[in-house]
Amino acid sequence: MGGDFGPCVTVPASLQALVSNSQLHLLLVGDPDIISPLLAKADPLLLERLQVVPAESVIASDAKPSQAIRASRGTSMRIALELIKNGEAQACVSAGNTGALMGLAKLLVKPLDGIERPALVTVLPNQQRSKTVVLDLGANVECDSTMLVQFAVMGAVMAEEVLGIAQPRVALLNIGEEETKGLDNIREAAVVLKNTPTINYIGYLEGNDLLTGKTDVMVCDGFVGNVTLKTMEGVVRMFLSLLKSSPEGGRQAWWLKWLGRWLQRRVAKRFGHLNPDQYNGACLLGLRGSVIKSHGAANQNAFAVAIEQAVQAVQRQVPNRIAARLEAVLPKSD
Amino acid sequence: MGGDFGPCVTVPASLQALVSNSQLHLLLVGDPDIISPLLAKADPLLLERLQVVPAESVIASDAKPSQAIRASRGTSMRIALELIKNGEAQACVSAGNTGALMGLAKLLVKPLDGIERPALVTVLPNQQRSKTVVLDLGANVECDSTMLVQFAVMGAVMAEEVLGIAQPRVALLNIGEEETKGLDNIREAAVVLKNTPTINYIGYLEGNDLLTGKTDVMVCDGFVGNVTLKTMEGVVRMFLSLLKSSPEGGRQAWWLKWLGRWLQRRVAKRFGHLNPDQYNGACLLGLRGSVIKSHGAANQNAFAVAIEQAVQAVQRQVPNRIAARLEAVLPKSD
Repeated sequence: MGGDFGPCVTVPASLQALVSNSQLHLLLVGDPDIISPLLAKADPLLLERLQVVPAESVIASDAKPSQAIRASRGTSMRIALELIKNGEAQACVSAGNTGALMGLAKLLVKPLDGIERPALVTVLPNQQRSKTVVLDLGANVECDSTMLVQFAVMGAVMAEEVLGIAQPRVALLNIGEEETKGLDNIREAAVVLKNTPTINYIGYLEGNDLLTGKTDVMVCDGFVGNVTLKTMEGVVRMFLSLLKSSPEGGRQAWWLKWLGRWLQRRVAKRFGHLNPDQYNGACLLGLRGSVIKSHGAANQNAFAVAIEQAVQAVQRQVPNRIAARLEAVLPKSD
Repeated sequence: MGGDFGPCVTVPASLQALVSNSQLHLLLVGDPDIISPLLAKADPLLLERLQVVPAESVIASDAKPSQAIRASRGTSMRIALELIKNGEAQACVSAGNTGALMGLAKLLVKPLDGIERPALVTVLPNQQRSKTVVLDLGANVECDSTMLVQFAVMGAVMAEEVLGIAQPRVALLNIGEEETKGLDNIREAAVVLKNTPTINYIGYLEGNDLLTGKTDVMVCDGFVGNVTLKTMEGVVRMFLSLLKSSPEGGRQAWWLKWLGRWLQRRVAKRFGHLNPDQYNGACLLGLRGSVIKSHGAANQNAFAVAIEQAVQAVQRQVPNRIAARLEAVLPKSD
């Protein structure tokens, strides 16, 4: 039911995901009166792997998380998470209220031992043809140094276990590389990480290093992470749209125009992997189950990508692997 | 003396600025033993408009601002700012330690009446073929709501007086557009701005709206602003370098290669205005004089752009105009 477009996007995206993955079963939690008509023309064979789970109400995207959680009984988001809790689903995908999803997931799916607050994490393509794990992307707008350290640990485990990077480099996002820079919580986290031998901590990096591949894991608080990721997406989208549009003014020979378009398409293709739609879906890391948060503005393709992320999280057993590694890696708090 | 490359960049950039602006006079403050050799081959006519002001020492880029300020006597940065204070210079350009520049400028050049803390501001090109004023970019890593409101006021005055935008739209950078989103200081600033009739406050915007032109002024704290701007620059630089590089693999006919390069250059040209070098130089707004902070990593062209920014700040009398408007616009604090 969530996201800027609701079931108009999520239902067709679900069908798309079922087409591309024949092993997938989906439970669509929400208002059957809205969902069913959108399924009317679907292939009956697909519908065998799809079930509508009725929910009375919906958490509004602008609801205050604390209030929304208190009044969450019967909402589609809560019911979807309860399906995980009861073992009826292996993962949950939502484009709804991030704060409410975070709070309810913590309440129902529970954090892993030693994790104070789960974090939203995504994997970005970088210039070294590799990938960078970035967290937190908005689950925690304010973070103390302990949370940043836990994010670093979870990010490192994810880079190692999911991306297969040995001894992944971990950096803290800051406004300069010198030790004196930044906010207190970041400097305190740096001291702890430097003294954690199981973490390959490489120091501070700045915003311009998000895509350079200088680090495998980039750690920041949820406010900065959210703004940074959206800024990046905004610039990438602008470039992609400018590349697709034709250059202004001037009369050109038809063959020049044609060649121009052909080459622009080629250039656009080279940047395709940076298109935010291609990596939609941030994983709520640090829970005992797989919960994926889709961009609220996701279109059908992008939401289908988020569903596929959930599939991968389940197949790669991300929560289990992280739990297994956490105990060895987490600095002892006592 | 400042920046990643020191006089090797700033001195040639100064000569370049003198060539392109025949009205310009420059005072180069620093170590004459380092500066003079770099001037040895310069056109003697240019050197008539250039003077080296000796300074014994330099504030290190990684020095802690508070300590650096206490021990600043005799440093190039302090002497440069004293030249403004004494009326011997009309503006100061530095690629050095941002925190120290901010602190010393506040101490020597003094803030305008009603301004608690000056802010670093830049003007970014946007997709509407207009410009967006963005502040703070790193002068204040932590900001309370009063500071954010003052940044909004200064940004609005700058958009109106310098960019000629009537009733400029002012937005706060946040992680969502709903009123409940974000940090306390941002929500408090929103309440004040909503009740300030002289400010055309339009609400929260997210990182992806930095370049869309939805607002004329974007306000954030210095930590977020710095990370955001550097993220944007990183993405833009990556795109520009990818555009310039040739597509991977494949044998092509020579004419196709040639045409490819020609068209790629055309495309790269269309994005040229987004090249961070083209708008290097953030103005320290809220002071009684013009102080411009160049990117530490600026190359010669970029540092010359920062010098030109200083010229424009002086010609447009930015500090005076802001002072004149502030009294009417600033919410009365008593």
